[in-house]
Amino acid sequence: MAKSNKDGRPAARLPRGLSDTPPEGVRETSRMLSVIRGVYESYGFEPLETPAIEYTDALGKFLPDQDRPNAGVFSFQDEDEQWLSLRYDLTAPLARYVAEHFDRLPKPFRRYAVGPVWRNEKPGPGRFRQFTQFDADTVGTDNIAADAEICMLTADTLEALGVPRGQYVIKVNNRKVLDGVLAGIGVDPVSEADAIKRLTVLRAVDKLDRLGPQGVAMLLGSGRKDESGDFTPGAGLEPRAVDAVLRFIGAGSQGSGKTLAAIEPLVRGANIGRAGLAELVEMERLLAAAGYASERVAVDASVVRGLDYYTGPVFEAQLTFEVRNDDGQLVRFGSVGGGGRYDDLVARFTGERVPATGFSIGVSRLQAALAAIGKAQGHPRLGPVVVLVMDRAELPRFQRLTQTLRAAGVRAEMYLGTAGMKAQMKYADKRASPCVIIQGADEVARGEVQIKDLIEGAKAAATIKDAKEWRETRPAQVSVPEAQLIEAVRGLLARHKAHA
Amino acid sequence: MAKSNKDGRPAARLPRGLSDTPPEGVRETSRMLSVIRGVYESYGFEPLETPAIEYTDALGKFLPDQDRPNAGVFSFQDEDEQWLSLRYDLTAPLARYVAEHFDRLPKPFRRYAVGPVWRNEKPGPGRFRQFTQFDADTVGTDNIAADAEICMLTADTLEALGVPRGQYVIKVNNRKVLDGVLAGIGVDPVSEADAIKRLTVLRAVDKLDRLGPQGVAMLLGSGRKDESGDFTPGAGLEPRAVDAVLRFIGAGSQGSGKTLAAIEPLVRGANIGRAGLAELVEMERLLAAAGYASERVAVDASVVRGLDYYTGPVFEAQLTFEVRNDDGQLVRFGSVGGGGRYDDLVARFTGERVPATGFSIGVSRLQAALAAIGKAQGHPRLGPVVVLVMDRAELPRFQRLTQTLRAAGVRAEMYLGTAGMKAQMKYADKRASPCVIIQGADEVARGEVQIKDLIEGAKAAATIKDAKEWRETRPAQVSVPEAQLIEAVRGLLARHKAHA
Repeated sequence: MAKSNKDGRPAARLPRGLSDTPPEGVRETSRMLSVIRGVYESYGFEPLETPAIEYTDALGKFLPDQDRPNAGVFSFQDEDEQWLSLRYDLTAPLARYVAEHFDRLPKPFRRYAVGPVWRNEKPGPGRFRQFTQFDADTVGTDNIAADAEICMLTADTLEALGVPRGQYVIKVNNRKVLDGVLAGIGVDPVSEADAIKRLTVLRAVDKLDRLGPQGVAMLLGSGRKDESGDFTPGAGLEPRAVDAVLRFIGAGSQGSGKTLAAIEPLVRGANIGRAGLAELVEMERLLAAAGYASERVAVDASVVRGLDYYTGPVFEAQLTFEVRNDDGQLVRFGSVGGGGRYDDLVARFTGERVPATGFSIGVSRLQAALAAIGKAQGHPRLGPVVVLVMDRAELPRFQRLTQTLRAAGVRAEMYLGTAGMKAQMKYADKRASPCVIIQGADEVARGEVQIKDLIEGAKAAATIKDAKEWRETRPAQVSVPEAQLIEAVRGLLARHKAHA
Repeated sequence: MAKSNKDGRPAARLPRGLSDTPPEGVRETSRMLSVIRGVYESYGFEPLETPAIEYTDALGKFLPDQDRPNAGVFSFQDEDEQWLSLRYDLTAPLARYVAEHFDRLPKPFRRYAVGPVWRNEKPGPGRFRQFTQFDADTVGTDNIAADAEICMLTADTLEALGVPRGQYVIKVNNRKVLDGVLAGIGVDPVSEADAIKRLTVLRAVDKLDRLGPQGVAMLLGSGRKDESGDFTPGAGLEPRAVDAVLRFIGAGSQGSGKTLAAIEPLVRGANIGRAGLAELVEMERLLAAAGYASERVAVDASVVRGLDYYTGPVFEAQLTFEVRNDDGQLVRFGSVGGGGRYDDLVARFTGERVPATGFSIGVSRLQAALAAIGKAQGHPRLGPVVVLVMDRAELPRFQRLTQTLRAAGVRAEMYLGTAGMKAQMKYADKRASPCVIIQGADEVARGEVQIKDLIEGAKAAATIKDAKEWRETRPAQVSVPEAQLIEAVRGLLARHKAHA
């Protein structure tokens, strides 16, 4: 609830599902994005940025939870009473961009984009209302080679970030194959009348990981009551039809030849199913030739993805190593992104079909994964060198010392508070400063500066018994002529970096 | 207006005041941000990211146009009926963060932040509803050295980005001095009753650049009718009081000793005015000692800044070189950012005063400025090498050629459309590819690949008369053994980079 203090002041807090990112997190994200950007650029994709806000009707309603109020999207009216929304992904804005500029774009059009997206989720643990996606898309071709390439790109990206081969798999399926199964059990995949039923089936299957086959069977049939007592209506399929869908997703990921063979009899009767199967076979062939098949990219009949706009191949990047969940159990890390082919998104605007395919990485999820396997390189960085202020009347002198350090490429700051020596030392500690610079009247008289090594000092403090010994030995503290300040500080930084 | 096509399809367009950023723009912004980040880090600031959405009451209402509906902010209710807003700057979220985490932060707390902010402006030319700010703030100290440092930081940043010394100036003033002038004419700067009058004065003065002294005088007095006939009510000051304010801002920027001397008699009678003057004198002293006074950072009595929350020193970064405006007239480029001291923002939450000062760079404005003086380094980048697909049955072979290039660090892609040779060449041209790779059946038989240099080819095309001569000379096209592909492409790229 929006709280305020007794005295009417607002409470300082964030809405749930939103969070601040501290320095190490910001630096690690930045490093990750730069690695991903490098791989995407090497594949020939070009950057594009679109704004956070779009017309609501331009974004459309494709979220899995579209039946909830607000369709899971943050929306508001501007002064002209037009409805605007925060983008919920980077694909819908891309479709708007392509429709708007179609004539002057190269075909195919290949772009990458990175940025925050927003979901108007009911606040709760683990539900984020803002998160960052990193997308690559190839628009304007129905060439299955574009889908195969997107999977290769994702595999290369994960490896470039340090996920070892064998600890991830890009899973591939095809919506047309599922539609073939549905056609076989009397659900018409293209009729308006069966659209809701098809969507319900899709979302039921998408919950396989969480609910298991039995839970999915209930959602395919008459419905399911969850632990909290909430009832989710089912797709209303006959038991025989439920069985067909379960057999399809049960074909799973047996090594792709076997999976494809298991699927074939289920879709044999429907053109659309056979077309989907042919696309899977073609992707297999391209991936195998490029050396990505089986271990890195594998067909998995249980992957369907929750978004409504996919029309053909769908992909999901899964990390297969285990981590402990909040209850201390070992669980597979799971999905860090997904994508697929969406041939109808641009036609929403233009009426003309523009086939497209793409992939979206969930940056925060992936960042958590890299941290879990020790591949996040954002170890805490050394703070700035702090120049202590021994006498505020002499600020300009301390400012000049600071500038001298900066001019030499040393990260440095003058203490800018107004407290005494003890607080200044505490400040430097809290900033993780490698050392402080001290120049009182005595040092000025001798043309010297003192450099106090805080890292060595902390080690010495652990072994020294009392204040007397400390004063006598003055550990980790040296005086040097002012002219040698830079050289001495550089030496100190080099020593600590070598041990970092 | 939210348009849709005759057939009910949504129109593909962005709301006014929002824009897409093409590849060159994205790359140039990224370069700029990295330079700015480097300077801020060298000063000891640490990165922090806060989300785009905050509780509306946590952001407060400080925008210059707060008297308009919605207070210029995009706001919406979430499912729990709480009001949320998109941040309109990076300072208000910082105040929320500091209030929330005060106890565990180093004091002073020094952070930088970069990201988009949103303003619910009435759409119109030159009004942006999303733009990027880059802020640095020092929170938790009333030391004027922190204000002086922020000005030095901004000057160093502009120079690091390539703005020559002498073509910019960081202008400094102090709200307390203006309050002293107001006290002298009977407007109580701290009383609730006079708060609106003070704000009206502030905003009138902030329009000096646009309206000139006469326009400001009207806004200080009975009000002003603009060209469109709209009437803006004035502050209702007596003519004598209007005169005092005009004399104050007229002290301008004469070289700071003179400006300070001209201000002194206007504020002599009020404690707050004298305090402000003393702060200006102290900043002067620190800036002069550090070598930043006068040319790089200068006192200017006409700078007040529009935001309501400043309490002491205010800053504005102005670029002094001239550019042509939309009407072809030469005008000074003007402001690319501003800031100041805001000692009461954290107290909004905690009731305890936490003095703070900071500066915000308008990234897009500054990017436009760098482009205007030829300092934007985002010259169009060469596109990827394109491997042509001579036979779709052979896709895996072309895919392998592409991978070979990428593995060698060459940006490359296989043509992913489904069109013929002519369209493929056109695609490569549109992508600004340096060359295409061709390997038909003949080349395969000879173990060769052809490399067609598109840049040399374009030059040759300008001089060659007819198709016959072209076929006979085959300009800018070489065949090499497949094993020498990498070497040959690298040579070609090196030649073109040298001439870029």
